[in-house]
Amino acid sequence: MEPLEELTAALPAGVVVTDAERVEKYRHDRSQDPDTGTPLAVVRPERADQVREAVRWAARHGVAVVPRGAGSGLSGGSSAVDGGIVLSLERMTAVEIDPTCQVAVVEPGAFNVDVKRAAAEHGLWYPPDPSSYEFCSIGGNVATNAGGLCCVKYGVTTDYVLGLDVVLADGTLVTLGGKRIKDVAGLSLLKLFVGSEGTLGIVTRAVLRLVPAQPQRSTLVATFASPTVAAEAVVAIRGRLRPSMLELMDRPSIRAVEQHRSMGLDVEAGALLVAQSDAPGTSRTEEIATMEKASRDAGATEVFVTDDPDEGEQFVQARRMVIPAVEQLGALMLEDVGVPVPRLPELLAEVERIATEQDLLIPVIAHAGDGNTHPLIVVPHDDDAAHLRALQAFDDIMHAAIALDGTITGEHGVGRTKKSALPDQVGEDVMALTRRVKDALDPDGILNPGVFF
Amino acid sequence: MEPLEELTAALPAGVVVTDAERVEKYRHDRSQDPDTGTPLAVVRPERADQVREAVRWAARHGVAVVPRGAGSGLSGGSSAVDGGIVLSLERMTAVEIDPTCQVAVVEPGAFNVDVKRAAAEHGLWYPPDPSSYEFCSIGGNVATNAGGLCCVKYGVTTDYVLGLDVVLADGTLVTLGGKRIKDVAGLSLLKLFVGSEGTLGIVTRAVLRLVPAQPQRSTLVATFASPTVAAEAVVAIRGRLRPSMLELMDRPSIRAVEQHRSMGLDVEAGALLVAQSDAPGTSRTEEIATMEKASRDAGATEVFVTDDPDEGEQFVQARRMVIPAVEQLGALMLEDVGVPVPRLPELLAEVERIATEQDLLIPVIAHAGDGNTHPLIVVPHDDDAAHLRALQAFDDIMHAAIALDGTITGEHGVGRTKKSALPDQVGEDVMALTRRVKDALDPDGILNPGVFF
Repeated sequence: MEPLEELTAALPAGVVVTDAERVEKYRHDRSQDPDTGTPLAVVRPERADQVREAVRWAARHGVAVVPRGAGSGLSGGSSAVDGGIVLSLERMTAVEIDPTCQVAVVEPGAFNVDVKRAAAEHGLWYPPDPSSYEFCSIGGNVATNAGGLCCVKYGVTTDYVLGLDVVLADGTLVTLGGKRIKDVAGLSLLKLFVGSEGTLGIVTRAVLRLVPAQPQRSTLVATFASPTVAAEAVVAIRGRLRPSMLELMDRPSIRAVEQHRSMGLDVEAGALLVAQSDAPGTSRTEEIATMEKASRDAGATEVFVTDDPDEGEQFVQARRMVIPAVEQLGALMLEDVGVPVPRLPELLAEVERIATEQDLLIPVIAHAGDGNTHPLIVVPHDDDAAHLRALQAFDDIMHAAIALDGTITGEHGVGRTKKSALPDQVGEDVMALTRRVKDALDPDGILNPGVFF
Repeated sequence: MEPLEELTAALPAGVVVTDAERVEKYRHDRSQDPDTGTPLAVVRPERADQVREAVRWAARHGVAVVPRGAGSGLSGGSSAVDGGIVLSLERMTAVEIDPTCQVAVVEPGAFNVDVKRAAAEHGLWYPPDPSSYEFCSIGGNVATNAGGLCCVKYGVTTDYVLGLDVVLADGTLVTLGGKRIKDVAGLSLLKLFVGSEGTLGIVTRAVLRLVPAQPQRSTLVATFASPTVAAEAVVAIRGRLRPSMLELMDRPSIRAVEQHRSMGLDVEAGALLVAQSDAPGTSRTEEIATMEKASRDAGATEVFVTDDPDEGEQFVQARRMVIPAVEQLGALMLEDVGVPVPRLPELLAEVERIATEQDLLIPVIAHAGDGNTHPLIVVPHDDDAAHLRALQAFDDIMHAAIALDGTITGEHGVGRTKKSALPDQVGEDVMALTRRVKDALDPDGILNPGVFF
């Protein structure tokens, strides 16, 4: 029997997809990595034992396994590999809430928003909120240690992962952690798998910590002459408090949004900060006042404050709309660089310099309170010269971040599109250490090859 | 040249200690592990390059290296090994605060309290607060992923570690992470080293996240007929909010404290809860009121509330005093078991049952809000039969926690005294995975052998 027939026979009907037209839909993730390959098949398991079966088959035949959640990844972590399989977890979507333990037990294909909704029915909240929370999967969130807008106060995915079931490269399923909050028994393998981008194992179940529902929020929107001035306000604010949101949009982002759909943003502003406080009681007003003062002291030209949640949400939606809006302007190379918060003004100045140097439009949005920015390099369609300049800008921005004691990726992952810069950030010794861990857990290199290395 | 002469010659005078009387002081940590060995020498480096020198020497000669911070460990993680060296980090105590980045850059021998004090000078706070914070080292805190009293709201050590310098088993020094808040570039090796109990590398520097100074606290003390009733109140409180402290003391703990030094605790109480809220503004009063109501509904016999920080601190000090007070009653076998919070009443009932069955005094204190308990098994001096019963109780309590979906250690680590129960908690497959990671990073097994395995 041919290997692929063997796999098809071992799994229920419909799990293994080989139809070329259907397979095509699983080749790319949202990064549109141009180097993506053509897989043998897409495997769509419904249960963990089917994941094990597929991985054992892959191990026997030395076939590459590219795990895939919702395909919303921005670094090519789910780009298909020639001759490999795409292991799509899209059918494993169960979400169970344990309200007494305040945890969600979630399959990897469930969307972030599904967990939020299920938790809300019990007055609970799952904080991590990537901009893509309505169409990104928990498996992908765990794989990339995803962040979002509320992370400045509430932390990132790893802070909420209490337990994982993981299928290892030889098909063994291990359970790490559980519903207990504190647990230091043995190595922190749980934390090692979070952010491992599918290179060490396939997550089939996650136990996620929930917290009480988010309190009421107030919103502040401040206008600045330039992104660097806005960033100075961010540094001042973060020196005093941890707001529940502190986002930055520069003028090209604002304009892209307004061009896409009018949201009433000031298209003459050099940059906007959208900040929120969810501190309880009167301290919400105090936090907003502190942020207003810091903004004005830094040179804000206008400050608008609202306690109306719907009005506040509109600004947040405008912020979330930037990426789809900018995608209308051309192909997108999406950056995710971060620096220590006080270096944020320098990073933004560098991005501006690189945009000018490469004659490119690079709108910038940022989870500014965490020092994490998304320069959005716009590549005009069918312009090969611009494409080359964009590749240069992509690389230059990563190296600018590294030079400012920063990182090439704050929340999207390295995937396949950023791996060339990884050694420049972490150094050869850390790469060698990474290789040793990878080889120990996946000696034949079948799990998501091409990521990191 | 003999190996030890070679080491002495390679390091500055005074770094290598071989004097038997001085070496004796480094054999035990606070666990008083009876199986501790006799080391060849104690190495007391002053700088990271001396740590590298010592580890390279150990690697060349296949000598075991037992890292040691302040020796306050409670699981035998720093018990000396026959023929090995104790690598004491006690002279590496530098603490530097970077107030603009809100981080502390700390050498491993610095005490937790040193970081807190240095941060406070800048209006900043390092939250993790083991009861031993005045005499435990940051290196040990990182090695065990230490917790403490405020963790119920503020998290544990790993949540504050942004960067580490680590000397690997071959003497290579790697730098992981840095002063940036979000960073997902490559595997989460940083998190793997936190909690690795010196088995994967020697931490020579930590970058720790700081937060704004803790706001004012109010304190609630509630009295209950029994620990299980108090635990029911804990479950109810945790279902509604995350207080900044939620500690439990049972009657034997209360009495041990009062016998040691009168603190004005009610010696007739079956159990006490000591809770705090540091929520801002009026919500502090609201949180305290919520906790008071939950306590009374669960059956509290008395509730006392104070906004006076000094008065509140006295109760916290009484709680911190339990371990030294119980140490006066005999030798101590200190447990550290945890369960999901809703299982806390069952765990406490099990501990009581085991104490009766083995005819032993087992006072219990708990970071109850996290489901993490410290049953303190008192072993009368020179009573061999009691010692055997205590060993049985120690094991029974760990297995009771495992049966309740819990852990054998919430914050102290496995060390050498709990390793026999580790496979029963995590299973053989996770032990095998742990072994693969260990072998990849320390192929000759020189780093803290006897811990975990």
